[in-house]
Amino acid sequence: MNSTLIHRRAVLTALLAASAAALPLSSLPALAQGDPLPSWTDDQTKQAILTFVDAVTREGSPDFVSVPQRIATFDNDGTLWCEQPMYVQLAFALERVKALSNQHPEWKDKQPFKAVLDNDIEALAKSGMKGLMELIMATHAGMSTAEFETIASDWIKTARHPKFKRPYTELVYQPMLELLAYLRANGFKTFIVSGGGIEFMRPWTEPVYGIPPEQVVGSSIKTEYKMQNGQPELSRLPAISFIDDGPGKPVGINSHIGRRPVAAFGNSDGDLEMLEWTTMVSGGKRLGMLVHHDDAAREYAYDRKSHFGKLDRGLVEAPQRGWTLISMKDDWKRIFKFQ
Amino acid sequence: MNSTLIHRRAVLTALLAASAAALPLSSLPALAQGDPLPSWTDDQTKQAILTFVDAVTREGSPDFVSVPQRIATFDNDGTLWCEQPMYVQLAFALERVKALSNQHPEWKDKQPFKAVLDNDIEALAKSGMKGLMELIMATHAGMSTAEFETIASDWIKTARHPKFKRPYTELVYQPMLELLAYLRANGFKTFIVSGGGIEFMRPWTEPVYGIPPEQVVGSSIKTEYKMQNGQPELSRLPAISFIDDGPGKPVGINSHIGRRPVAAFGNSDGDLEMLEWTTMVSGGKRLGMLVHHDDAAREYAYDRKSHFGKLDRGLVEAPQRGWTLISMKDDWKRIFKFQ
Repeated sequence: MNSTLIHRRAVLTALLAASAAALPLSSLPALAQGDPLPSWTDDQTKQAILTFVDAVTREGSPDFVSVPQRIATFDNDGTLWCEQPMYVQLAFALERVKALSNQHPEWKDKQPFKAVLDNDIEALAKSGMKGLMELIMATHAGMSTAEFETIASDWIKTARHPKFKRPYTELVYQPMLELLAYLRANGFKTFIVSGGGIEFMRPWTEPVYGIPPEQVVGSSIKTEYKMQNGQPELSRLPAISFIDDGPGKPVGINSHIGRRPVAAFGNSDGDLEMLEWTTMVSGGKRLGMLVHHDDAAREYAYDRKSHFGKLDRGLVEAPQRGWTLISMKDDWKRIFKFQ
Repeated sequence: MNSTLIHRRAVLTALLAASAAALPLSSLPALAQGDPLPSWTDDQTKQAILTFVDAVTREGSPDFVSVPQRIATFDNDGTLWCEQPMYVQLAFALERVKALSNQHPEWKDKQPFKAVLDNDIEALAKSGMKGLMELIMATHAGMSTAEFETIASDWIKTARHPKFKRPYTELVYQPMLELLAYLRANGFKTFIVSGGGIEFMRPWTEPVYGIPPEQVVGSSIKTEYKMQNGQPELSRLPAISFIDDGPGKPVGINSHIGRRPVAAFGNSDGDLEMLEWTTMVSGGKRLGMLVHHDDAAREYAYDRKSHFGKLDRGLVEAPQRGWTLISMKDDWKRIFKFQ
């Protein structure tokens, strides 16, 4: 027996012991029959989800929603996976700048590239949105869509998170995976609606979240169809096509889905318009939820002052709109599968 | 018994008699067991479809395609429904100009509106693409997406085709409805990829074709998210967002679907890039088909010189690429359900 197996067995034993000790006997039958949300604490937040799903799926319910109309949308960064210490896609862009730098000797003296190569985070921050766009164009354009898919897929397989030392695709929130599966089991179609790049996400959303490419909405750059050596390809151009963030999210939802969601999940001020668009309807039960990052021990704690995933206006708007804040600390028994 | 019922019974009797007379006995069991394409003549074209579906869906076949990859895309105008004597959406725009003209007294003296109000087709044609865009902006923008959906839905319910005197939604091709259902029964996800307006199509594609809004790709104008009297809405702006035609079709497919189709169906030169993108792959069986309008008796006959749905380059490219031309006259036993 190797050490990994021993470790796994020890963890399993500890988990079983902990479960038996922590759970009241009365809740065991529910678990045995398959609690759909086992990583969620049995509290008001979990109850809000169960109550909503019951209300919109039970025949005869005044809030019944037909299956085709059961659309649920999820932000990605900070809602389905970890967005600290920086967006995963930004980590990708920075590593691509380093990987491509010997083809671009001019970058040594040119911002924002110099800042990236010098690991000068302050100078990088100073370059602002303009600098960020330059980095994206230099690393995300100038190749075919097929080539970019290979580059992004290869990177996501090998890159590791600086704190957790694990692939980013293991830094997805276990309670949200359960929520996605639970909604789908109840006839919902689940969509990602993210400010992140649509083609950065699509190669891995199906194996990781069970969400196929055609149900991923995101930001994009322009592409152009052309024949290259007698074969058709889509060439990625250095020009923004669409920013799927803030007020762009309802626009992206309308463009890609063509229906108004009945449930939406986010974590930052960039998600508020999506939650407004979903929940501010006359008649009918709707669900809006914001993941609140308040668990410095198991993940990160941040909201109003964060560079990534800032949640400020949302903390004010949530109670006014009837949106639920999900406390990672209190509402989630575990955050990652490996914990 | 009213006359409609009498008529129906007569038609049914005639159909049964015709079937029994025309079909060799050997094909009757296949029909009894449910021929999936009963409106298609039993010829090479039908066989090409059956052979393709068998090749990509049979376990162990060298051309097997997994269910998530079974994407089939369909042009709309001229491929799924009638596009003569003009695109249905253009008929809608012209009628909207007339309906709105008393709010716009200036249109009486201003092209291309004057041409519409005077029924002056020649002057309208002269106004070209620029004129067409002006008509679209005047009739398709300046309201919320919800308002536009109501306007378009109401129109499609009451408008009648000038030749067939029936709702446009009855002028869908019965053989193509059977093909859509047959592909779906074999694990395909069916998409519309049309040069037409995405929001013009979405209100009726689900009841008419079984294609939900999220599987409709089309041309679009820009929309903007805003709060109006304390309610969120998407406002339709007089600016083009995307033209889903010609080389735009692979771009639209990539943006909305994120996978390359394995089968594509069109009828005009505006569909050729979609068929190239679908079929020009190394390895794996693919299907590209073009509906050829060669039936003046039952529908219309047109190709190289048509204003709408011109098929010129496609007639040259089809044999080179291995695409099948569907002869409406020879390959389709009937065109519309009511015939």
